[in-house]
Amino acid sequence: MPAQEYNVGCYLLDRLVEIGCGHLFGVPGDYNLRFLDDVTAQKDLEWVGCANELNAAYAADGYARCRRIAAVLTTYGVGELSAVNGIAGAYAERNPVIHIVGGPSTEAEHGHKMMHHTLGDGLFQHFSLMSENISCMTARLTVENALTEIDRVIRGVMYHKKPGYILMPMDVAVAPAFPPTVRLAPRMAEFSQDALDAFKVAAEEKIKSSKRTSALVGYLCDRFLCHKEAQALVDDAHIPFAHMLLGKGTLNEQSPNYLGCYFGSSCPDSVRRPVEDADVCVMLGVKFHDFGTGYFSQKIHLDHMIDIQPFESTINGRVYPQLPMKDAILAVHEIVMKYCDNWPKNESKPPRFPAPEDEKFSMRHFWNEVQDNLTEGDIIVVDQGTSSSAGAGLVLPRNGKCIVQCLWGSIGFSLPAAFGAQLAEPHRRVILSVGDGSAQMTIQELGSFLRHGLRPIVFLVNNDGYVIERVIHGWNEAYNDIATWNWCALAKAMSATENQADTATVKEVGVIARMMKETQKERSALMFREVMLGRHELPIVSLAWKPN
Amino acid sequence: MPAQEYNVGCYLLDRLVEIGCGHLFGVPGDYNLRFLDDVTAQKDLEWVGCANELNAAYAADGYARCRRIAAVLTTYGVGELSAVNGIAGAYAERNPVIHIVGGPSTEAEHGHKMMHHTLGDGLFQHFSLMSENISCMTARLTVENALTEIDRVIRGVMYHKKPGYILMPMDVAVAPAFPPTVRLAPRMAEFSQDALDAFKVAAEEKIKSSKRTSALVGYLCDRFLCHKEAQALVDDAHIPFAHMLLGKGTLNEQSPNYLGCYFGSSCPDSVRRPVEDADVCVMLGVKFHDFGTGYFSQKIHLDHMIDIQPFESTINGRVYPQLPMKDAILAVHEIVMKYCDNWPKNESKPPRFPAPEDEKFSMRHFWNEVQDNLTEGDIIVVDQGTSSSAGAGLVLPRNGKCIVQCLWGSIGFSLPAAFGAQLAEPHRRVILSVGDGSAQMTIQELGSFLRHGLRPIVFLVNNDGYVIERVIHGWNEAYNDIATWNWCALAKAMSATENQADTATVKEVGVIARMMKETQKERSALMFREVMLGRHELPIVSLAWKPN
Repeated sequence: MPAQEYNVGCYLLDRLVEIGCGHLFGVPGDYNLRFLDDVTAQKDLEWVGCANELNAAYAADGYARCRRIAAVLTTYGVGELSAVNGIAGAYAERNPVIHIVGGPSTEAEHGHKMMHHTLGDGLFQHFSLMSENISCMTARLTVENALTEIDRVIRGVMYHKKPGYILMPMDVAVAPAFPPTVRLAPRMAEFSQDALDAFKVAAEEKIKSSKRTSALVGYLCDRFLCHKEAQALVDDAHIPFAHMLLGKGTLNEQSPNYLGCYFGSSCPDSVRRPVEDADVCVMLGVKFHDFGTGYFSQKIHLDHMIDIQPFESTINGRVYPQLPMKDAILAVHEIVMKYCDNWPKNESKPPRFPAPEDEKFSMRHFWNEVQDNLTEGDIIVVDQGTSSSAGAGLVLPRNGKCIVQCLWGSIGFSLPAAFGAQLAEPHRRVILSVGDGSAQMTIQELGSFLRHGLRPIVFLVNNDGYVIERVIHGWNEAYNDIATWNWCALAKAMSATENQADTATVKEVGVIARMMKETQKERSALMFREVMLGRHELPIVSLAWKPN
Repeated sequence: MPAQEYNVGCYLLDRLVEIGCGHLFGVPGDYNLRFLDDVTAQKDLEWVGCANELNAAYAADGYARCRRIAAVLTTYGVGELSAVNGIAGAYAERNPVIHIVGGPSTEAEHGHKMMHHTLGDGLFQHFSLMSENISCMTARLTVENALTEIDRVIRGVMYHKKPGYILMPMDVAVAPAFPPTVRLAPRMAEFSQDALDAFKVAAEEKIKSSKRTSALVGYLCDRFLCHKEAQALVDDAHIPFAHMLLGKGTLNEQSPNYLGCYFGSSCPDSVRRPVEDADVCVMLGVKFHDFGTGYFSQKIHLDHMIDIQPFESTINGRVYPQLPMKDAILAVHEIVMKYCDNWPKNESKPPRFPAPEDEKFSMRHFWNEVQDNLTEGDIIVVDQGTSSSAGAGLVLPRNGKCIVQCLWGSIGFSLPAAFGAQLAEPHRRVILSVGDGSAQMTIQELGSFLRHGLRPIVFLVNNDGYVIERVIHGWNEAYNDIATWNWCALAKAMSATENQADTATVKEVGVIARMMKETQKERSALMFREVMLGRHELPIVSLAWKPN
């Protein structure tokens, strides 16, 4: 297929490449097929066809967590609605994903025609209205507005770190256009010098009398790309810091100042006390949500907080608006350096997973063997459930990354997200831990790993159903059971050749440790391990899931 | 788990049983777990856990096409959004599906808490607002309004034949309640005697001068349960009739009056001419949509139509409102009996599939072998694509049923829908034909068939990608390729025991015919057949998919 005349679709693709999308996830459909010709012709961007649209959206989310931008392409109605759960998750957890929907022609819409993939009522706005609830910007492209609307949505997505929605009718996609004249300048956060000055005064007032200062690091510090400034702050002033689970891996967990993961009343004293007992706790992009706090059991006095959020900060209940996170962190950094000499330094190590109780292979063995064999740069992806609970107890290696969707908490997210992350970071080792109930939701994308020749480590934790639901309610109830599959055979069946997937069932101590060691540098195949655990093994780290 | 005190959840379940739901499809989540105890305790309704929520919604749709009502249970946010594509399909194609969502507690909502499965903004209405676009009724239950709102939604769903949405916070679900006092009386369609009288005059004016009268039967005749009245009309007056694809199987296709499937300009003359050349064409619940008409190529003169819709009819552009479909059909029946004696009767047989061109196994062989071995009561489910195109050429056996989603047209629908249909009709033979690209979307539910010990026939048409998209655009493009799977091994991997699935790859003439014959009465296992067809075999019936 020869390259098309330069058109609106080409413009959109050039912009995607410009902002860092090296891949476009999605599923073909007849309303986006012509645009896919332009995708094919765009050599700086690779089309990644997924098995379905929800999986594509999850994969884009995982990709965005690594590359800081992602895009997903669906077709009108059927495709876009299949993706909305994944888009909503990116919205909740602030990952910039651009959702492009190929739509029916302007002529079909103006004629109110009863087209396929519509509700049959001749109206074409239903689905963009739905997506408005989960997008920071939505655009319905016309030939007249297309280029400016594309730019508006892209800039909004980059600014808000939330998904944006672009409905591109098939005729608009192929309408002639000129390429971008200049690169997009990023939209700058509003800044008030008055706010910064007042914030500095209030912060210094608090800090100068502090005898113990700590920091708590949340996901927004990562999402708004302030991790370097935050790292410098805690490093230079030797401030003990903890991660929230949702912000896990934002700062270096091999730092001597790292306390561990803070999750409220049930987290170990060595983490909890420094955070809760500090005179000043510098909160860096933290939001307290039920799962990350043992159902709101955090005990940090409001008067002790310097609460730094993306666009404003709060001290003693007073809000300092129009104050970008980066400026606030730099200001606090400057102030703490004056007072930090006498503050106690961290002397503890982050808590370790509890040791196995005996030689029988168990969840404790599994996670200790994983922990002990992580290596620099590893990306670990944990599904919501017993795996994400374990994530709270992990200590990441240098330059490690943890992908966990514990606010939105959609089970099944992790497998496609790991696929997206592995495409984004082809040279890093991606390690996925997913329960059998979660894996059944989105298992198709195991085939996508294999199709693309990717070689992550996949731990399929077979504990016979929805164990995290059992913990919450229904310990022995049949509704928490799932269909019984032969997982290793399944991984083989999704392979094009016999050797694409290296599969094994793990029931013995030491097997995982050995494999992890052997695969640090490279893997000859996708390593698929079915980890056999009891259906009633409790999560290795208790986050105090609230029972019903 | 002992039965709960009678509560709002029990009331809802009693109502579901009352209106004919013998099963409740869905996925557990912590916001609906307590309600699931009540589901378990309700002995007249079986919980059907699916692998994911989209599949559950599709299954409910398939069930509703058989039982005329269905219900699906999801959890808040993550679960309900995964289901919306399936619910939207039920809306477009008018299948009454009640979507019940277990929600966070009223206390969490009033406290604007940052709960899991929310967008993290403390607001709880986003998702019910989204579902308003695809529901005829939505309700957010409170302790005060729960029972009346449940009744309102159920009556609305039964009346409009569209999905309804019920958000049931977890505390409301367990709030004490009294059982229903009486059965719900169905909501009656509005009726105007004046409209009926005027309609009769206009219809008789048209019919009395007709020399040739035909009927065209659409899906709304089926959905609004007027098939018996419609059948009596065409039988008694010997009126030649055709089905629209979307209404396929509404009337008896073994009738001597059956012409075949009408789909506009490219359908055979033996069907097209009687429909298009008639002086009067009685339209029974027909909507012309692009895929069912060869992109609006139907040529039926507006002046020749007596257009009967669920709640009104139209003759010569004049609308007769408040006229229920059933009354209009009975009126037309009475009138045609006065004039039908001299009308030409149908002398043709419905067109057959084209004969195979040679001995090499091909799509023509496949569909002819299926057609020749259908038997009374068979339910055939065809996915959108080459399978649904073939559906247009099928002639159903007596009491046969065809499930095809060709307006909404969401690929992947058919496999879970067939699962729902087989649960609804356990004693009928369900025959599914699904392409490989479609099957990858929702393959999990193959495991659900096996888990429930169901024994349908599954034809997995392996034609190496999205062939229907190739027909539309991108004949050789890589974006229409999919991952390569070993399908028979996959079906085995999803079985709990070796013999649950009988699998084979079909490349030879006669194999399908033999299997179909042998399995007319019963099947010892789920019959899984991978049907090997070329990636460039065109659909056996050309519906003139519009190329881009």
